[in-house]
Amino acid sequence: MLRFLTAGESHGPLLMGILEGVPAGLEILKEDVNRDLSRRQKGYGRGGRMRIEKDEVEIVSGVRWGKSMGGPVGLIVRNRDWENWTEKMSPDPGFAGIAPPMTRPRPGHADLTGVLKYGHRDIRQVLERASARETAARVALGAVAKKFLLFFDIQIGGHVVGIGGVKARKLSLRELQKPDGFGKWMEVSEGSELRCCDPTAEQKMREKIKEAKHRGDSLGGVFEIIAIHVPVGLGSYSQWDKRLNARLARALMSIQAIKGVEVGLGFEGAAKFGSQVHDPIYYDSTGKRYFRKSNRAGGIEGGISNGAPIIVRAAMKPIATLYKPLRSVDILTKEPFEASVERSDVCAVPAASVVGEAMVALELANAFLEKFGGDSMDEIQRNYRGYLHSLREQ
Amino acid sequence: MLRFLTAGESHGPLLMGILEGVPAGLEILKEDVNRDLSRRQKGYGRGGRMRIEKDEVEIVSGVRWGKSMGGPVGLIVRNRDWENWTEKMSPDPGFAGIAPPMTRPRPGHADLTGVLKYGHRDIRQVLERASARETAARVALGAVAKKFLLFFDIQIGGHVVGIGGVKARKLSLRELQKPDGFGKWMEVSEGSELRCCDPTAEQKMREKIKEAKHRGDSLGGVFEIIAIHVPVGLGSYSQWDKRLNARLARALMSIQAIKGVEVGLGFEGAAKFGSQVHDPIYYDSTGKRYFRKSNRAGGIEGGISNGAPIIVRAAMKPIATLYKPLRSVDILTKEPFEASVERSDVCAVPAASVVGEAMVALELANAFLEKFGGDSMDEIQRNYRGYLHSLREQ
Amino acid sequence: MLRFLTAGESHGPLLMGILEGVPAGLEILKEDVNRDLSRRQKGYGRGGRMRIEKDEVEIVSGVRWGKSMGGPVGLIVRNRDWENWTEKMSPDPGFAGIAPPMTRPRPGHADLTGVLKYGHRDIRQVLERASARETAARVALGAVAKKFLLFFDIQIGGHVVGIGGVKARKLSLRELQKPDGFGKWMEVSEGSELRCCDPTAEQKMREKIKEAKHRGDSLGGVFEIIAIHVPVGLGSYSQWDKRLNARLARALMSIQAIKGVEVGLGFEGAAKFGSQVHDPIYYDSTGKRYFRKSNRAGGIEGGISNGAPIIVRAAMKPIATLYKPLRSVDILTKEPFEASVERSDVCAVPAASVVGEAMVALELANAFLEKFGGDSMDEIQRNYRGYLHSLREQ
Amino acid sequence: MLRFLTAGESHGPLLMGILEGVPAGLEILKEDVNRDLSRRQKGYGRGGRMRIEKDEVEIVSGVRWGKSMGGPVGLIVRNRDWENWTEKMSPDPGFAGIAPPMTRPRPGHADLTGVLKYGHRDIRQVLERASARETAARVALGAVAKKFLLFFDIQIGGHVVGIGGVKARKLSLRELQKPDGFGKWMEVSEGSELRCCDPTAEQKMREKIKEAKHRGDSLGGVFEIIAIHVPVGLGSYSQWDKRLNARLARALMSIQAIKGVEVGLGFEGAAKFGSQVHDPIYYDSTGKRYFRKSNRAGGIEGGISNGAPIIVRAAMKPIATLYKPLRSVDILTKEPFEASVERSDVCAVPAASVVGEAMVALELANAFLEKFGGDSMDEIQRNYRGYLHSLREQ
Repeated sequence: MLRFLTAGESHGPLLMGILEGVPAGLEILKEDVNRDLSRRQKGYGRGGRMRIEKDEVEIVSGVRWGKSMGGPVGLIVRNRDWENWTEKMSPDPGFAGIAPPMTRPRPGHADLTGVLKYGHRDIRQVLERASARETAARVALGAVAKKFLLFFDIQIGGHVVGIGGVKARKLSLRELQKPDGFGKWMEVSEGSELRCCDPTAEQKMREKIKEAKHRGDSLGGVFEIIAIHVPVGLGSYSQWDKRLNARLARALMSIQAIKGVEVGLGFEGAAKFGSQVHDPIYYDSTGKRYFRKSNRAGGIEGGISNGAPIIVRAAMKPIATLYKPLRSVDILTKEPFEASVERSDVCAVPAASVVGEAMVALELANAFLEKFGGDSMDEIQRNYRGYLHSLREQ
Repeated sequence: MLRFLTAGESHGPLLMGILEGVPAGLEILKEDVNRDLSRRQKGYGRGGRMRIEKDEVEIVSGVRWGKSMGGPVGLIVRNRDWENWTEKMSPDPGFAGIAPPMTRPRPGHADLTGVLKYGHRDIRQVLERASARETAARVALGAVAKKFLLFFDIQIGGHVVGIGGVKARKLSLRELQKPDGFGKWMEVSEGSELRCCDPTAEQKMREKIKEAKHRGDSLGGVFEIIAIHVPVGLGSYSQWDKRLNARLARALMSIQAIKGVEVGLGFEGAAKFGSQVHDPIYYDSTGKRYFRKSNRAGGIEGGISNGAPIIVRAAMKPIATLYKPLRSVDILTKEPFEASVERSDVCAVPAASVVGEAMVALELANAFLEKFGGDSMDEIQRNYRGYLHSLREQ
Repeated sequence: MLRFLTAGESHGPLLMGILEGVPAGLEILKEDVNRDLSRRQKGYGRGGRMRIEKDEVEIVSGVRWGKSMGGPVGLIVRNRDWENWTEKMSPDPGFAGIAPPMTRPRPGHADLTGVLKYGHRDIRQVLERASARETAARVALGAVAKKFLLFFDIQIGGHVVGIGGVKARKLSLRELQKPDGFGKWMEVSEGSELRCCDPTAEQKMREKIKEAKHRGDSLGGVFEIIAIHVPVGLGSYSQWDKRLNARLARALMSIQAIKGVEVGLGFEGAAKFGSQVHDPIYYDSTGKRYFRKSNRAGGIEGGISNGAPIIVRAAMKPIATLYKPLRSVDILTKEPFEASVERSDVCAVPAASVVGEAMVALELANAFLEKFGGDSMDEIQRNYRGYLHSLREQ
Repeated sequence: MLRFLTAGESHGPLLMGILEGVPAGLEILKEDVNRDLSRRQKGYGRGGRMRIEKDEVEIVSGVRWGKSMGGPVGLIVRNRDWENWTEKMSPDPGFAGIAPPMTRPRPGHADLTGVLKYGHRDIRQVLERASARETAARVALGAVAKKFLLFFDIQIGGHVVGIGGVKARKLSLRELQKPDGFGKWMEVSEGSELRCCDPTAEQKMREKIKEAKHRGDSLGGVFEIIAIHVPVGLGSYSQWDKRLNARLARALMSIQAIKGVEVGLGFEGAAKFGSQVHDPIYYDSTGKRYFRKSNRAGGIEGGISNGAPIIVRAAMKPIATLYKPLRSVDILTKEPFEASVERSDVCAVPAASVVGEAMVALELANAFLEKFGGDSMDEIQRNYRGYLHSLREQ
């Protein structure tokens, strides 16, 4: 069973994450993690901070000479800007009051709810942890989960399918199932500043983002995460919280600014007839395996992976930090004011899709470990192969 | 902290549920639970079984003389049909083989994935637990959670906002905030066979269901759950799995046949500008409270309830048991066949909305107990009042 | 992963338990469970109630035709005495007040602490759940865990090694390791009314119990649980809560009246030199396995099972319900009184040892499933055999 | 609810810990944590490493200007010796093989079990995490929990009551209950190199340690943790895993080398009559509170704290690293050898008692938060005071 916790503030010295339950013998390289950290920082529509940061991981525990040891994997990502914040964010009481309190909550953020919940008088106490900066730690841990899955040929990738109402063409199951279909698709996604595989749509998205920037406004969108080669049998209907879709929904909805999640056809399927939604079952007597020609279920039936690619989507609301003022109320004076900022991203959907990959990877790796057990990669592989073989006998 | 487990099969003797963590001194009446069990069984578009069942609860532990004692609440709902299944579902090995195995998996069900995961040769071993019949136990437990919340004036209700593509008008925040606006709205929902508050849409939905029935097909839809009077401060951004929206997403997505979940504007918000999505903040200096004039956030900001009604929606796929045949493969012979049934519901979205209420209630009650602690209703109320008072001082 | 919850009161209609995570294909028979229920009710020194009860299980879910299906196993044990308590323990508010409140807390019970914690005015609200009657549900669930372990030849048995200060001879590792050494030892334990394998000590224990009865007093003691054929590798040092000894300690200490737990030499080892405590390591090149000639570690090193028999002991305090009066205070009047009873057990250590077996079985089964994964007995056995084979290669 | 994970190896760059669930507004100072880190490193009978280390904490998250913010508290303790290990313990695969593998497992350590479980060929992969060095992270996190408890006047302290069979006098309840009785007792413990409050026993312990050192042997012992001012009502009998004694048993038994745990009279009580074991109940009508004149229960009845000091003891086996050779087998060659070391502690019981304080503090703080809820110290204090007041009314 995998467990993880992250810690760290947006302007603190560093973010850290602990991933408990990583089996021994998994190759974990700094580069694997840095690649995803870098992917998270890219994207058309980002503000200035992304250029400052250039996140890099330090692997501080659980890995020796490139391989996991079985103990918890500890990762650190330093905040490059720390030198400008050492006093303002110091744990030392000697610096108390060195910066004035923030008293103006921004609508759409945790600012006001956080201050009321925790009894704070300074919004900074809230936003420092509520910030999406925290996702850097998740992406780092997710990179380890991805590496684990990749060992079993399970690949995870995300792309943006909508920004500000502009929708991109989705990939068909046929395209996905072509030899290296997934690889090619991911290449396109990687090559796009918006992680969008539909060039026409991408162009419109860029224009939409420019428009939003011009208006001092922000945009959200929808990203899709695809996981291929997931074996049949992860998750269970046995108890409500073991259903794979429920677990993925929690994982994705836990990402900052996500307001919707769907699996397969999702909301669209709720508007169709049953005969248009369910995936007929076929059998390949050569390969000795069941298959579907469609994947409206998004790879999950009855709370269990069915062997088809897992397809989930998440809806991200527009960034809540706007140039354009939003009405709010000062928490000290109770006077109204117009909330606005000088610097912000306009759209962070491409980055969020990288976080989505990480969260899906962490959940799938966990479900995989529950089914196959094992303390070392060798043991897990032996168990996994035995299962794959038994499927063909069944 | 609340925990719960359910057990029981669709044609076993009974369903049972244990809810651990219920504080002492809560009034729990059989009638409270039976009301929701009955609501779950209603709805236009249901098949014959619903008329057989008439679920009734037995409170077998945790409650004495109408009040909870602090120990786990144990509930039992008997299956009325058990006498016809005693041998076919007996735990006794003496009856092994008395019924022929089911070998024809229905697309869209757990049938095939379950058989492969658990190594079964008889699909009945799977469908008996994967069946939505299990939700009767959740509804029973959820009724306890609702009663707990109601003590603090937190009310939860569901209505159907879409079936087969027909969309119903949603209620506005203004309507909800009118004195007894929620009560009136729930009355309309209760009075509708489709739990739909928009009579014009309801009429179209009925026609759509008739059409589906005529075609031997099935329909899904979308329901919305609203929780009013939820205080600001439930859930947290502090760790991914403490976010209230993530927890609600898991709860709803865990319901059989749910393929999508959204909070507030959800997917719609992902297509808008930020200035159209975030809810400006106001202050009522008489009532000494912050408020919003809109509720696009669905009552949750930064993973924390913000005091506005919590509004979540779930998309249900059409029922996977169709009169109309769907292609599938026999698991023994590997021969193709056309899967069809003689009796089934056409649409179960109204029932699912009652399950949705239960799951939302269980999550909110849990989040409430985490924030306010307490082992007795008196203690919790004292803690809660102290908090509400402090909010006005802040 | 196994999870379980129990529910039910001492004089309610029934006790129930849900065991979630039982793999498919495990033989579970009513007789298996009843055997342990019956063993729990035996023992020299028990009072009258044990003769009334004759517990029997009803398997109400998770098992069909003698085999588990993969869903939660639900078990019910009815309270035979229910007909005399239906009104006094009814969930119906109509019976409120039909029995006078109990207001005299017994020292050593949860009576006073429970009343203060939960804000009760009637001690019955507390003792009904705090009672050791609850362990019947644990024993029932534990019987399933034992059956699971037995499939892999892991056997668990308990015996009493001390009562009221009389100590019994312990079995040596040599005796345990003889062919059927464990079986023979368990036969002796089963044949003894005190579950004691040392006849001389047993005789003295009986006399001690008679003496206690005569004095109107009660006795505690120490029982030992042994698990043989546990493979090396269960549990982990990786995180504090994964250590097998920590988990077993929690499991045993959670049994009513247990005040101490030890593994292997336990407290005795704390008084010795290291050279007298650690078990030298040997290698059997024919069997290709490591072994020890001693087992002072009790089968666990570094939080991980080491392949030797697991040996744990628990200290039970004397029963807190005495004929002999203990001073206490009425919770309503605050007047002192002398707490005494008319009927009670004098010593329940043999029964507690059966509960101990159940708790150890549940923890070991859980640790086993974590290591070997798997959803069906076939799959788990395949994984397990692969591991055992790999050990010989290592 | 508190959760925590630690990460880090004995010779890695650092240890880290994340404590999730710390309420806002708690004063957390570096000095508080460093004090306990330093106490953990002291003690007569320690080897050379303790002098190298001088652990110091870095508070890297969750605290600003001396106060917790509500987010996870992240702590780092650097390993002073890291510069000598950077290559031998590097996560970089480029250094693979730079140090020869350790192939000689030490009896009594996780060495052999760990290697077999995780499929390692180099024992270093195991011992680095299994090492008691990990407890530095626990002590750091525990210091935060202690600070939390201290806010509510709950104080926790440990002392050594036995080493190598030498037993120290225990403190009486009367002494504890004197004004500042606990404080004085802790002063004596702090002043003793063995954390022993009985000077005569301490002297004998020193001699025993000298003897062990001379023999090339090691010693274990027993420490006792006392927590005063714990309110009645923490923990519950409601479900097995909520019992406070069970939770404390797990916490203590999870410490490296602990083989036994007991509460109150513990094993001693199992040898007595009931009338000698249970604590009669009295009522102080002036203070409006119940009390006991004895505390054989160790402050816990029915799985719930009863308001008396909580008293738990843990038995530590002698250190498994001996100068004196122990027989073992090389894991590569399978040849026997005599395991011995050049440098080691002789006795680490005083240090373990500091770890014990930390673990008890973490469990009690968790149980406290479960009962009283709350997100800020102000809120928790309000809830707590309300409860204390209600106790007097009951």
